[in-house]
Amino acid sequence: MTTIAPDNGRPIAPRSGALRPLGIDDVTITGGFWGERQELNASVMIAHAQDWMEREGWIANFDLAVRGGLPQGRRGREFSDSDVYKLMEAIAWEHGRTGSADMNARFEALAARILPVQEPGGYLNTMFGRPGQQPRYSDFEWGHELYCLGHLIQAAVARARTAGRDAFVDAAVRAADHVCAEFGESGRDKVPGHPEIEVALAELGRVTGDEKYTRQASLFIDRRGHGRLADIEWGRSYYQDDVPVRDAEVSRGHAVRAMYLAAGAADVAVDLDDRELLDAIIGQARRTFARRTYVTGGMGSRHTGEAFGEDFELPPDRSYSETCAGIGAIMLSQRLLLATGEADYADMVERILYNIVATSPAEDGHGFFYANTLYRRTVGDVPPADIASPRADSSLRAPWYHVSCCPTNVARTLASLSSLVATTAGDTLQVEQYMPGRIVAELPAGRVELHVETGYPHEGTIRFTVVNAPDRWRLALRIPAWAAGATIDHGSRTFPAEPGHVLLPASPAVGDTVELTLPLQPRFLHPDPRIDTVTGQVAVARGPLVHALESVDLGCDVSRAVIDPAAGIEERDGDIRVSVRILPEANAPWPYRPGSPDSEPVEKRLVRLTPYHAWGNRGPATMRVWLPAVQG
Amino acid sequence: MTTIAPDNGRPIAPRSGALRPLGIDDVTITGGFWGERQELNASVMIAHAQDWMEREGWIANFDLAVRGGLPQGRRGREFSDSDVYKLMEAIAWEHGRTGSADMNARFEALAARILPVQEPGGYLNTMFGRPGQQPRYSDFEWGHELYCLGHLIQAAVARARTAGRDAFVDAAVRAADHVCAEFGESGRDKVPGHPEIEVALAELGRVTGDEKYTRQASLFIDRRGHGRLADIEWGRSYYQDDVPVRDAEVSRGHAVRAMYLAAGAADVAVDLDDRELLDAIIGQARRTFARRTYVTGGMGSRHTGEAFGEDFELPPDRSYSETCAGIGAIMLSQRLLLATGEADYADMVERILYNIVATSPAEDGHGFFYANTLYRRTVGDVPPADIASPRADSSLRAPWYHVSCCPTNVARTLASLSSLVATTAGDTLQVEQYMPGRIVAELPAGRVELHVETGYPHEGTIRFTVVNAPDRWRLALRIPAWAAGATIDHGSRTFPAEPGHVLLPASPAVGDTVELTLPLQPRFLHPDPRIDTVTGQVAVARGPLVHALESVDLGCDVSRAVIDPAAGIEERDGDIRVSVRILPEANAPWPYRPGSPDSEPVEKRLVRLTPYHAWGNRGPATMRVWLPAVQG
Repeated sequence: MTTIAPDNGRPIAPRSGALRPLGIDDVTITGGFWGERQELNASVMIAHAQDWMEREGWIANFDLAVRGGLPQGRRGREFSDSDVYKLMEAIAWEHGRTGSADMNARFEALAARILPVQEPGGYLNTMFGRPGQQPRYSDFEWGHELYCLGHLIQAAVARARTAGRDAFVDAAVRAADHVCAEFGESGRDKVPGHPEIEVALAELGRVTGDEKYTRQASLFIDRRGHGRLADIEWGRSYYQDDVPVRDAEVSRGHAVRAMYLAAGAADVAVDLDDRELLDAIIGQARRTFARRTYVTGGMGSRHTGEAFGEDFELPPDRSYSETCAGIGAIMLSQRLLLATGEADYADMVERILYNIVATSPAEDGHGFFYANTLYRRTVGDVPPADIASPRADSSLRAPWYHVSCCPTNVARTLASLSSLVATTAGDTLQVEQYMPGRIVAELPAGRVELHVETGYPHEGTIRFTVVNAPDRWRLALRIPAWAAGATIDHGSRTFPAEPGHVLLPASPAVGDTVELTLPLQPRFLHPDPRIDTVTGQVAVARGPLVHALESVDLGCDVSRAVIDPAAGIEERDGDIRVSVRILPEANAPWPYRPGSPDSEPVEKRLVRLTPYHAWGNRGPATMRVWLPAVQG
Repeated sequence: MTTIAPDNGRPIAPRSGALRPLGIDDVTITGGFWGERQELNASVMIAHAQDWMEREGWIANFDLAVRGGLPQGRRGREFSDSDVYKLMEAIAWEHGRTGSADMNARFEALAARILPVQEPGGYLNTMFGRPGQQPRYSDFEWGHELYCLGHLIQAAVARARTAGRDAFVDAAVRAADHVCAEFGESGRDKVPGHPEIEVALAELGRVTGDEKYTRQASLFIDRRGHGRLADIEWGRSYYQDDVPVRDAEVSRGHAVRAMYLAAGAADVAVDLDDRELLDAIIGQARRTFARRTYVTGGMGSRHTGEAFGEDFELPPDRSYSETCAGIGAIMLSQRLLLATGEADYADMVERILYNIVATSPAEDGHGFFYANTLYRRTVGDVPPADIASPRADSSLRAPWYHVSCCPTNVARTLASLSSLVATTAGDTLQVEQYMPGRIVAELPAGRVELHVETGYPHEGTIRFTVVNAPDRWRLALRIPAWAAGATIDHGSRTFPAEPGHVLLPASPAVGDTVELTLPLQPRFLHPDPRIDTVTGQVAVARGPLVHALESVDLGCDVSRAVIDPAAGIEERDGDIRVSVRILPEANAPWPYRPGSPDSEPVEKRLVRLTPYHAWGNRGPATMRVWLPAVQG
C-alpha cells in the first residue's frame, strides 16, 4: 500500500480525464448563498442528524453489537449503519474544511464506537450474521451489506483525504480487502441490490494507489445486468440488473441506485481506461438528462420503486425527485465533467445544487424534504416534531424519516461543496460554479490564487481578482446554457461569452480583475411537447433558480391559477411577479367542453413567485412549478 | 314474504322516483352497436368467463366444499365466489332476455353446485369458517364475505325478476336473513370492507316487498364512515370508512367500492324516503363527475388502491378507470336518473357505455381490459393466452386476470342493457338511450309500442315508428349535452331540441314517425384548465364516442404527435382524420427552453383516429386520447 495522506480534500480524484478537480483545501467559500448553507450544516444540520440517529438508536446499534445486545435491541432499517457512515463522511469533510476540533472529536468518538464491531475478517454490519440474525450475505436484494460497507469506505476516503491515515481508515481498508476476497474473481459471483460499493472501492483505489479495489469495482459493474438478483414485482430494472451496464440505453429503475451505479462505473472507466464503458455511461446520462429529468434537475417520476418512468414521463405531482437521487446525479455529472471537460455537466451540477440540494433542508436546518415534488396538490399534514415521518406526505419538511438517507447526504455534499467550484487542465483554471471565496490552484506553470466576489445567484456579476499567478496561465469561465448574452470584462475589453467554457484570450496578471456578467432577467421555460403532463404550461426561472407559485402568495389554491406569459415577468425588490388569472371555484358539471378551455377569471393580478428551494418555509401550502398558460 | 315473480326483468326497481324504469321484457335491442355486443356476450363472453372460472378452479371450490376438500384445494382470491355469482347474474338476465334453454340450464347447473354449500343458518362462502380456514367474519377489511353474499343476492334478484322464485332465490333470501340476523340493530356492529351487500339487500327488499332488507342496507350505510374498519396504509378513505356517507363531499378511495356504496345508498334513500341521504349522494356524484372523472367517464386516477385522486388529478397515463368502476358509475347514474329525472345522468350512462363498457371486451369477446388507460405510453408485453394476467400491464386485452371482476361485470351489464333504454313518468315515455329495437310501455293511459331504427352512434338519425299508443300520451327524447343543434321531426314540423329531456308538443299517434337528428360532426374537447396533466391538449369526440390516436395509424410512437386544431377534423368514409405534426425523435440535450416549445416537425399529415372503444384490437400499440395542440 502506498502512503495514505491528505490530497487537498478532493472528494473525487480520478487518475485521468480532461479536467482535474480541486479539493476543499484549494477552494474556500466565504458567505453568500452556499457559505450560509455550509455554516448551517456545520452549526445545525450535522448535530441534528447525529441527535436523531442517537434518538432512533441507529448509532447505539454499534454499542449493542459490542455488548452482545443484538439482535434483540436493534433499531432502524437494514441500512441504518450507512447513515451513520454518511454522517461521518460529512463530519470528516467539515473537519477538513474548517479544522474544527469539535468535528474531529465527533468523528473519533463515532469511530471508537464502530471499530470494535468490525469482525476479524473485515466484515462490519449490525444487522447480519449474529445468532438470531440472518446469515451474512443471505439477502443480496435487500440486505444492503455491501451498500453499508461502501459508505463506511467513503467515510474513510473522506477521512484519509482530510486527516490522513488513522484506525478508521485502516478498518475501511480491511473491509475493502474482505470484499475483494469474498467477491473477487474466484469468490461469490454476486452483485449488491443497492450500488455504492463500486464508487467507494474506486475511490479507495485512488486513496491507496492499489488497483485491486478498482478492479473489484469493475467486476461488480460487469457482473450487473445479467439477472443475478431476484426478479421482483418491479422487475430487475429496479436495481439495474436487467441489462448489462455497457448495453443500457438510459437510466431506469430506482433513481438513487441508478445514479450511484453510474458514478461508480464512470470512476472505473476512467481509472482503467475503459473507453467503451465511459461512452456507455455518457450515452445513458445524456439520454437521461434529455428525457427523464425534471426542470429542477430532479430524477424519479414514480413513487412506486422511487423510480425513473419511461421517456418523458415527468408528471409534476408525482415527481419523486428524491434528494439522494439529485446528489447521485451530482456525483455522476461532476465525474463526467472531469472525464470529458464538457461544461454542460457543470450546468447540471449547478441546477441540482440550487433546486434539489438547496431545497431539501429547511431554512433553520431542522427539517428536510426526502422527495421534491413539483406540484404539491394538497396542504397535507404537519409532520410531527418528535417522531420520524414517512417519506413523502406533507408540504412541510420533516425533522427525520423512517428512511432518512437524505439529511446525511445533504450534509456530506454541503461540507465538501467547494470541490465543485473549479477544475484545472494543464495551465488552465476553469471556474465551474460561482460562489464568493478563494480559489487556489497549483498549475504546472505555478500557483494561481483568485478572490471571488459575487452576490450570485441573486446578482449576475462575478468579480475575480488575481492575487497570485504565474506568467503563462489561462482562465476559463463556465457560461451556463441559460445565460445567453453573458459578457466578460478583462482589462479594458468586454467579450461576449457563449455558453460553455469560455477561455479568456489573455492571461490575467496579478492585480487584474475579471468580471463575468450573467444576465439574470427572469425567463419563461417551455417544456418539450413530449412531456405530456405539462403541455401548455410554463415555468419561470431566474439564473439557475427555478421558481414556484405557493398558495401562501396566491391567497387561494394554486390549482386556480392560470398565467399570462404575454404580460411578461416583473422583477422588483428582488422579487419576481407574474400576471395570473384566478379561476373561479370549480362549478362546471362536466369539465370537458368544446371551445375555449379558460373559465372566466374572477380576478387578474400580479403574484409573487418564490424560488423553488425556498418553498414550504412559511407554513402548509400548495405549490406548483409549472403554470398553465392562457390559451391563445 | 309477498309473491316473488318476474317484474318485466327490471334490474333496478325503486319504490318511487321521478321516473320509472322499463325492464328487459319491455325493451328489445335488435342489432346495431349494442345488439352485436349482446350477441357476442351470449355466444362468446359468458362461456369464455365460465370456462376460465372452471379452469382456474373458482367454480370447483364449491364442489370441494361439498366434498370436504377445503381449504386444501381452494383456488382463487378471497372474493372468487363473487365472480361465479356475477356470471350467474349475467346468465339470468341473458335467459330472461332470450328465453335461451342453454342459459337456463347453465344457471341451474351452477345453482346445483352452489346450493349444497350453503350452511343451515344461510351463510355461504368457500373461503371462511371451515377447519383450517379463518373463522367466519374474522376479517371485515379484506374478507369480502358480505361482498360475496351481496353478489349471490344480486344473482337471485336477476333470477327472480326473469324466472321467478326457485331454490336459488330462496337460498339468497336465507342468506339475506342470515345477514340481517347477524348484523342487525342488536347484532354485530360492523361494516364490510367492500360495499355491495347494500345495493343487493335494497333490491331484495324490492323483490320480496320486505322492508327489513332495505333497513339492513340502511344500517350498513349509516354505520359506515366512523372508523369501524382498520386504518390501513392507504387510510380509511380507501373503503369510504373515513367520513359518514351523509357528510362526504365527493367520492374518494377505491373507485368500485365508492360507486357500489353510492348506488346502494341511493336505493335506500329512495325506498325509505330519506331525502337527506339522497341529497348527499347527489352532491357527491355531481362533484365527482365534475372533478374526478375522465372524459371517457372513467374513474380512478391512481393504480395504488385503484382509487380516486384529488380534485382534477386526472393523469391520462395513470388513468386506472377500472371497467368495474365504470359499471358502478352506471349503476349510480341510472339510479339518480330515476330518482331525479335529470337527463344528464343518462348522458353519463351513455358516455360510460360507449367508452368503458364497450372498450373492455376485445372485438372477438375473448379478452378484456381491466384498467382503461387514456395514454398507453409503451407497447408492453403480449398477455399470455393460457394463464391469467396481472391487472394492467399491456396494450392488449388479456383473456383472464388474477383478479377478474371485470369480465363478468361486463357480461351482466350487456345482458341487462335494454333496461337502460327508456323510462316512464305517468303517461310520458322518455327514450334515454338510442338503439335499434322495440320499446313497449304500459302507461296508465294504455300500451305504447315504438319501433326504433337507427345506425347510432355512427349515424345521427333515430327514427321512431308508433306501432301502438293510447290517445293521450307524451314522448320525450333525451338530447345529450354535446348535441347542440339537434332537431326533432314529427309530422310536418321540425323542432329544435335543446339538451335534456325534450317533450314533444303533440302525442304521436299510431303510424306516426318521429325522427330525431343528433348532429354528429366530430368536435374537439378542451379540458378544464384545472386538469393539470392535459393543459394545452385536446381530445376528439364524435357523438358519444371519444376517439384516440394509435401508433398503428400514426406509424410511430404517439408521443411524437402534435395536433393542429386549426386545421379542423376531416370525416371521410366514416373515419375521422386530424392534421398532425410529427416531431423528430428526441434529440435536445435539455428539454426545457425559452421560446416556442414546438420542435420543427419532420412531417405534417392527416392521421386517422380510432374510436377509443376499438383501440388495442390491431396488435400492440401505443395510444393516447389527449393530444398536445400546436402552441399559438
